[in-house]
Amino acid sequence: MKNEDQQPVILVTNDDGLFAPGIKYLVDVAKQFGTVVVVAPDSPQSAKGHAITIEDPVRLNQVEAFPGIEAYECSGTPVDCVKLAKHLIFKGRKQPDLCLSGVNHGSNASINIIYSGTMSAAMEASLEGIDSIGFSLLDFKFDADFESSRPFVTKIIAETIENGLGETKLINVNIPKLKTEEIKGIKVCRQANAKWEEKFHEATDPRGKKYYWLTGEFVNLDDGKDTDIWALDQGFISIVPSMHDLTKYDAIAPLKNFENINI
Amino acid sequence: MKNEDQQPVILVTNDDGLFAPGIKYLVDVAKQFGTVVVVAPDSPQSAKGHAITIEDPVRLNQVEAFPGIEAYECSGTPVDCVKLAKHLIFKGRKQPDLCLSGVNHGSNASINIIYSGTMSAAMEASLEGIDSIGFSLLDFKFDADFESSRPFVTKIIAETIENGLGETKLINVNIPKLKTEEIKGIKVCRQANAKWEEKFHEATDPRGKKYYWLTGEFVNLDDGKDTDIWALDQGFISIVPSMHDLTKYDAIAPLKNFENINI
Repeated sequence: MKNEDQQPVILVTNDDGLFAPGIKYLVDVAKQFGTVVVVAPDSPQSAKGHAITIEDPVRLNQVEAFPGIEAYECSGTPVDCVKLAKHLIFKGRKQPDLCLSGVNHGSNASINIIYSGTMSAAMEASLEGIDSIGFSLLDFKFDADFESSRPFVTKIIAETIENGLGETKLINVNIPKLKTEEIKGIKVCRQANAKWEEKFHEATDPRGKKYYWLTGEFVNLDDGKDTDIWALDQGFISIVPSMHDLTKYDAIAPLKNFENINI
Repeated sequence: MKNEDQQPVILVTNDDGLFAPGIKYLVDVAKQFGTVVVVAPDSPQSAKGHAITIEDPVRLNQVEAFPGIEAYECSGTPVDCVKLAKHLIFKGRKQPDLCLSGVNHGSNASINIIYSGTMSAAMEASLEGIDSIGFSLLDFKFDADFESSRPFVTKIIAETIENGLGETKLINVNIPKLKTEEIKGIKVCRQANAKWEEKFHEATDPRGKKYYWLTGEFVNLDDGKDTDIWALDQGFISIVPSMHDLTKYDAIAPLKNFENINI
């Protein structure tokens, strides 16, 4: 991914919208590495997964969100933002060399990746052949401390620009809620096998009709020491190389019995 | 998955909503195998991926959509439907033995799986340990011909109830748009490497503001004869065993250089 003759072009996006401190921080880190273009949702889009907008039109407006940085807000999902960036904003221009998504306010480790708008935006960019990094901090708060991760986030981006991500094109980076000096380093891991145990908060609206609000508890089912959850629990930043091929290859042969079906 | 002493409980869902002919057909096929409970979105939720609703409440109402069948409509996404089914409708009851999602009006082969509400609903059920099948017909039309696939869909469900899905717990079944006698059989395959080449239809609204509408063309980048796209092109029904672990295992070792980062 080296560009001897020109600066890298870096697409920055997220799922929390342009006013989230996480993206402001990421733009600030990214701009030292090249030309940053920001395309982010105009409202929070957490947990939108790989949703795209096909039943409605989407809007895209240029905004002045970060001093000196070209930025746009989009009425669609995080994946819509990346598609609009590629096909409208970068049309006829040099396409991005790198996509950075986040920094998300809250974990996208383990099974969270499939629900995450942050990671889906990064995955969509990786599908276009762009090296892509999703960053998430294990702190849901609006005023979460992103600065503590700056030396690591900076070096992860530098390493990616220097050497590229190779075959994977997508990494899921999760950062423990720790001070800089407490972060033990970086572990490259697999996604832990975990799930959400949902509960629905049941209540009654002012008109007397029931409604339900999703809540739940993250349950780790995996005691492996090579997982992202383990690394984070130990105080490391976790990096999971990720992909969009959902084929379970080792199940193809055992299911060949379906091919014997005759009608 | 055999239940000697009682009928299987079958959860049926989709992403096109309760009024789609595809789900009506699937309920009709499923009811011969056990007790069917339907939970589907109250409006079309195509391309919602693995989105869940966390910023808003969701509604769930029992409806009389299919004669003699317990059915509910949900204001949320396809994944919300499955979560509500498990945690509210089946609370204190026997949990489903099988989840059937679809039949989707349109392909969910290859890369479509990551955008698909149909497949995400089935994946969510598989995460709960339930054998799950997503069915899709390669015809977008409202009045698509589902009946031609009936002998195959019936036997795929029968085989799954008889032998289970083993390790994978999730299969992605796509059906070519062919008459029964033209369907050549079933192939168990991997997901083809393909992508969407998007275009945005640009237009101006009645107030003079621009909007964009996503459109695009499916591009197969894979000439393998072991893929779902190949099988469908040849006139077979494709079955891809699928999973939710997005770790790209063979990229873990090559990326260990990230662990050398020191600050």
